[in-house]
Amino acid sequence: MERKMIIAKKLFTLLAKEELKDGLEVFLEGWVRGNRDNGSIGFIEFNDGTTFKNIQLVYTSENPNYNNISHIKYASAISVKGKIKLTPTNKQPFEISVDEISLLGDVADDYPLQKKRHSFEFLRDIAYLRPRANTFNALFRVRNALAFAIHKFFQERGFMYVHTPIITTNDAEGAGQSFKVVEDLKHPNDFFNASASLTVSGQLHVEPFALAFRDTYTFGPTFRAEHSNTSRHASEFWMIEPEIAFADLEDDMVLIEEFIKYIISYVLDNCPDEMNFFNTMIEKGVLEKMKHIVNSKFKVMTYTEGVELLKKAVEEGHKFEYNNIEWGMDLQSEHERYLTEVIAKGPMFLIDYPKEIKSFYMKLNPDNKTVAACDLLVPGVGEICGGSQREEDYDKLKERMIAQGNVEILDWYLNLRKYGGCIHSGFGLGFDRLLMYMTGLSNIRDVQPYPRCPGSIKY
Amino acid sequence: MERKMIIAKKLFTLLAKEELKDGLEVFLEGWVRGNRDNGSIGFIEFNDGTTFKNIQLVYTSENPNYNNISHIKYASAISVKGKIKLTPTNKQPFEISVDEISLLGDVADDYPLQKKRHSFEFLRDIAYLRPRANTFNALFRVRNALAFAIHKFFQERGFMYVHTPIITTNDAEGAGQSFKVVEDLKHPNDFFNASASLTVSGQLHVEPFALAFRDTYTFGPTFRAEHSNTSRHASEFWMIEPEIAFADLEDDMVLIEEFIKYIISYVLDNCPDEMNFFNTMIEKGVLEKMKHIVNSKFKVMTYTEGVELLKKAVEEGHKFEYNNIEWGMDLQSEHERYLTEVIAKGPMFLIDYPKEIKSFYMKLNPDNKTVAACDLLVPGVGEICGGSQREEDYDKLKERMIAQGNVEILDWYLNLRKYGGCIHSGFGLGFDRLLMYMTGLSNIRDVQPYPRCPGSIKY
Repeated sequence: MERKMIIAKKLFTLLAKEELKDGLEVFLEGWVRGNRDNGSIGFIEFNDGTTFKNIQLVYTSENPNYNNISHIKYASAISVKGKIKLTPTNKQPFEISVDEISLLGDVADDYPLQKKRHSFEFLRDIAYLRPRANTFNALFRVRNALAFAIHKFFQERGFMYVHTPIITTNDAEGAGQSFKVVEDLKHPNDFFNASASLTVSGQLHVEPFALAFRDTYTFGPTFRAEHSNTSRHASEFWMIEPEIAFADLEDDMVLIEEFIKYIISYVLDNCPDEMNFFNTMIEKGVLEKMKHIVNSKFKVMTYTEGVELLKKAVEEGHKFEYNNIEWGMDLQSEHERYLTEVIAKGPMFLIDYPKEIKSFYMKLNPDNKTVAACDLLVPGVGEICGGSQREEDYDKLKERMIAQGNVEILDWYLNLRKYGGCIHSGFGLGFDRLLMYMTGLSNIRDVQPYPRCPGSIKY
Repeated sequence: MERKMIIAKKLFTLLAKEELKDGLEVFLEGWVRGNRDNGSIGFIEFNDGTTFKNIQLVYTSENPNYNNISHIKYASAISVKGKIKLTPTNKQPFEISVDEISLLGDVADDYPLQKKRHSFEFLRDIAYLRPRANTFNALFRVRNALAFAIHKFFQERGFMYVHTPIITTNDAEGAGQSFKVVEDLKHPNDFFNASASLTVSGQLHVEPFALAFRDTYTFGPTFRAEHSNTSRHASEFWMIEPEIAFADLEDDMVLIEEFIKYIISYVLDNCPDEMNFFNTMIEKGVLEKMKHIVNSKFKVMTYTEGVELLKKAVEEGHKFEYNNIEWGMDLQSEHERYLTEVIAKGPMFLIDYPKEIKSFYMKLNPDNKTVAACDLLVPGVGEICGGSQREEDYDKLKERMIAQGNVEILDWYLNLRKYGGCIHSGFGLGFDRLLMYMTGLSNIRDVQPYPRCPGSIKY
């Protein structure tokens, strides 16, 4: 087998490690992203999937197979034997002068992708082919880098990764409709001897781990059976939920800030070509925006202060779509954006929300009216991540759980407060929405491999 | 806030980075894993969850709070101010002589864990507390390290991590019963406009990514609605499924061997205390077994050869429970174990299985009878991981898909073979079963945070 004899190089390793010099013989396998020739010289844009950028293969009419090579179709799989030719004055560091090309996989005439821009709607419909398109090539690379950055950040700091369960009987916060999981539709509770659903959050399940390992996190899929068919809602998405013991809201915010800056920096460092692509083709300025986040000191403002500032803005003539600002209201995106864009001019935490609009497990502040919660607001979006200190007082939590009606099913959660409990905090970050924010892609369907949304589950 | 003024050190950072010297002042927060005193001197076994081993806190009757400290209960959360005292002749590198201890979280009298050995059955029933028990402290640390090792291995090699969907309309291989996902039991298909179920494998969804990015992997939860209530079956478990393009079965086996050795080595290097614990308390010799895997050259044998050897063993008087060995049969664990333990005396690949007992997508060998599949067999268990080269020939695959009855719903999967397809391969590894193998824990319920099994979904 010839391919065993010549060690195939991936572009990834060739670019990263190999000492490149003129005349170095290489053997590569990959796909044709373009092929044009003028009868005496031809150029193949070649990509083996391990780098974002293509490499140019150059073949000439001296090659006895020139005619065959020039007819290799867009998207074909090929192998190439050739020699490195350094091109220090070009964008690409080298090209490959072709000795031999073999067609490994031809392309049928009904191939739906062309070497041109397709609409995102069209590409969504061929989700199994769109990773080959430039935007999605870039996107899935960034998605990969971001996911690894998350693990790397936590592992370097001694956090325990916990696989909280997907199938559950608990609905963390009544955060939304949940999907039911059944083996047999007619006897829905038979398999588990209980009513089972898909998780909406791993938080309640990870808290017991924080009270054993101090610093913990989850990173896994979560689900919402909401009929919100918007560009920001998906029925299935990944969430990161760290939970830290011996930590109050302030510690939580320190962690959030450090975390957000670390993972964005990691992507900027490891995906420069991809981020340049998004900055040029998808959202002008997204690169600057990300650098601004990394270089900002996140500000802190209370909800009460925020509401006052919004009221003042209305009095001074600022028009919101929803202008009736009152203490106790759930802020809209437009309000959050005003605070982060106009007032803070950068990322900011809004803290100490009215208890009525937040979850039962959040720590009641001494004022008895607000809870120790924080939302991180960023320019261009508004809220991107939310955290809180958890109520560690047994009696206070029990009172709220009785009101919530979950004190029986979640008795174990309450018990954590009487068995060596301590102050602890955590936050939740939607991975896919962060990815939208970082790439400028405006539809959540375009940042997921196979999006699941109401009415849509192709593939 | 005092705890803000004195920077709290975690044992993890203290052990890893700090230059330890006698008299160094520390402030720690954590839990009491034991407290005994003789009236003039007392010892607290202290753990803050960031290391496997406890640290000893020493307090004396010179401390005005001696009496209070000596009454601090097992499992209480405390903070401690004190000084490092190096103990180079002891097992622990240092102890802490206590200046001040504060009780942060007391323990109610009905606390179900005691400072003694509990049965695994009992601990399973209090899954939210068992991470505090030694075995599970060790287990979840190894689980965390193993999960990160997996990402690290693939990321270092330029593989793309792909979040294949959890909710799907496709059943990869008819691998087993799948759970249905519905919003409304009476109208089960309404939400997605299709019948939806929980994934049993990400393979079919990751193949399109391998044909764009060359080297890819999934690592996520998978599900089986099987009523197998055995110690090795769970309804929910995590799987690793790499998929590599331009790679045949041989390349696949090279990857598997490198991967298995890497992740086991990573755990041996990063969890020495935990692995010693398992070696002493759970399975004598498990450490040697793991080192043996790392140091073995994995052997290769065809299924046909294997069957011949098994037949010969029976002829020579070896008694299997199932003694009727025939070509074409699905081997039992006892047969696999005979091959890997008695014949190969180490890890081995069994390859080229009869096509009838393997999945439709596996590459048909030139003999037209076997497929290019490999199972990795290891001593003590039998099969631990299975892979195959995928059928890249459009017509051959179509024929098998027609027979399988999935050619319509999986038309896109088939199409990959006519749009720049190439040879590609992959494998699947059950994360939780690997963890059982590495720790010696014999019940899958004891390696998962909150196991889900038929009839059981507490928490």
